[in-house]
Amino acid sequence: MTEDLKPQAPDITPPCVILNEPQLAENIGSVARVMANFGLSELRLVRPRDGWPQERAWASASGAHWPLDDAKVFDTLEAAIADLKLVYATTARPRETRLPVYTPRESAGHLADEVAQGRKVGLLFGGERAGLETHDIALCQAIVSIPIDERFRSLNLAQAVSINAYEWKMTQDDRPWKKFELNVEEPADQATLMGLYEHLEDELDKAGFYHPPEKKPSMVRNLRVPLARARLTDQEVRTFRGVITALSKGRGRVLAKLAEKAAKNKE
Amino acid sequence: MTEDLKPQAPDITPPCVILNEPQLAENIGSVARVMANFGLSELRLVRPRDGWPQERAWASASGAHWPLDDAKVFDTLEAAIADLKLVYATTARPRETRLPVYTPRESAGHLADEVAQGRKVGLLFGGERAGLETHDIALCQAIVSIPIDERFRSLNLAQAVSINAYEWKMTQDDRPWKKFELNVEEPADQATLMGLYEHLEDELDKAGFYHPPEKKPSMVRNLRVPLARARLTDQEVRTFRGVITALSKGRGRVLAKLAEKAAKNKE
Repeated sequence: MTEDLKPQAPDITPPCVILNEPQLAENIGSVARVMANFGLSELRLVRPRDGWPQERAWASASGAHWPLDDAKVFDTLEAAIADLKLVYATTARPRETRLPVYTPRESAGHLADEVAQGRKVGLLFGGERAGLETHDIALCQAIVSIPIDERFRSLNLAQAVSINAYEWKMTQDDRPWKKFELNVEEPADQATLMGLYEHLEDELDKAGFYHPPEKKPSMVRNLRVPLARARLTDQEVRTFRGVITALSKGRGRVLAKLAEKAAKNKE
Repeated sequence: MTEDLKPQAPDITPPCVILNEPQLAENIGSVARVMANFGLSELRLVRPRDGWPQERAWASASGAHWPLDDAKVFDTLEAAIADLKLVYATTARPRETRLPVYTPRESAGHLADEVAQGRKVGLLFGGERAGLETHDIALCQAIVSIPIDERFRSLNLAQAVSINAYEWKMTQDDRPWKKFELNVEEPADQATLMGLYEHLEDELDKAGFYHPPEKKPSMVRNLRVPLARARLTDQEVRTFRGVITALSKGRGRVLAKLAEKAAKNKE
């Protein structure tokens, strides 16, 4: 099961995620889940508070087992990042460390550039309570600061990972679902639209809609503009023409009844 | 720059978050937390599975109480979005609904533009298990699709909200003063659109349009989507309602004349 889900090794090595002194196993599981959501798989743990492995991590990963199965545990942050060419530290509170501070978007761009050159890179996150200490941050090349609202800065660990992982994913494929864009189908050509307009306008004429008659041109315009804006497909044009026919026929029946009634009254 | 030239903070209303049939109160709490992280505060709940309020929501909000305290509960999605001028549906699986599909980044840009013009807008999210149904999506103006890894698509609800909320926050931070040209007229709110849909659907029902009857839901959807896409103004909605009435019933006076004429012909 896990084997089937586990992604094949891609051409590139996405950034690894390093959690420094994480506290709750549930949060480690949630981190694994968002990593999998955005195509990251390599997880490194520095001194997890409750030891490792922890069953609760797997329980909260919702099936994203592979980052947990393959997670490596380290005694020191230095050891955890030893083989990396670039490490960015994510913190909501950039300290007075003299490091550049980037948004997750800028950071993801840098990481993507490095990865494209075959370099191993990582994103470092602090524990739930304390975050990262200045001496941890000082091991990194830059700081990533998520644009949190000043009035409520308590960001969940997995959320911090997911914002960064999402931005990473965006660098890898700006529009991975491009095929879905064809959701918006080929719009009908103008001749087809004109057929719809004229059908509608003709039926409205029969229904006595244009009144006073001198207002007809502006009334027609006011109907055409929103229909033009909708960029109807051929199918939608057919549907709307069906609607016009159905409604008009309905009126025909009403009219026939009225005529009958009028005739009766005359008798 | 003199004091009085100094720009005032704009009086904007950030997008509201609508959760359709959310299941776990813990997730509603987590959603409140990420909303607060990124400056959103208005939460609307449609048929929360376990009722409302739920203590566990507050417990998992980590102190972000205000979106929960002020959350409004609705019986129908239609009621929940009635006053909004633009609603985008977030789904990982864009269906065959003919609506444009945007990234969270593009979507946030659109929402920010609308909000800057003083319009109330919302982001709609489905329940944890089922997501959004096609008929829910058909009430919206566009789809937001988060670029999830194809191999692991199980995204946590709060994560989906946070990615969108983060992108919203980025538009607010990035955005210096921007003047908007009000060349697109004020769109009608969703309640007004709903009135149009129901008027049309009711008349079509009377005209025997829905056949076979089991196809009615998809036929209704196919009519609503292009109308939603058109972003009709109040005036345009009135015009179309006039069209529906005219087509289905004819216009009073003219109809009477026609009936008279028909009666004469019968004589």
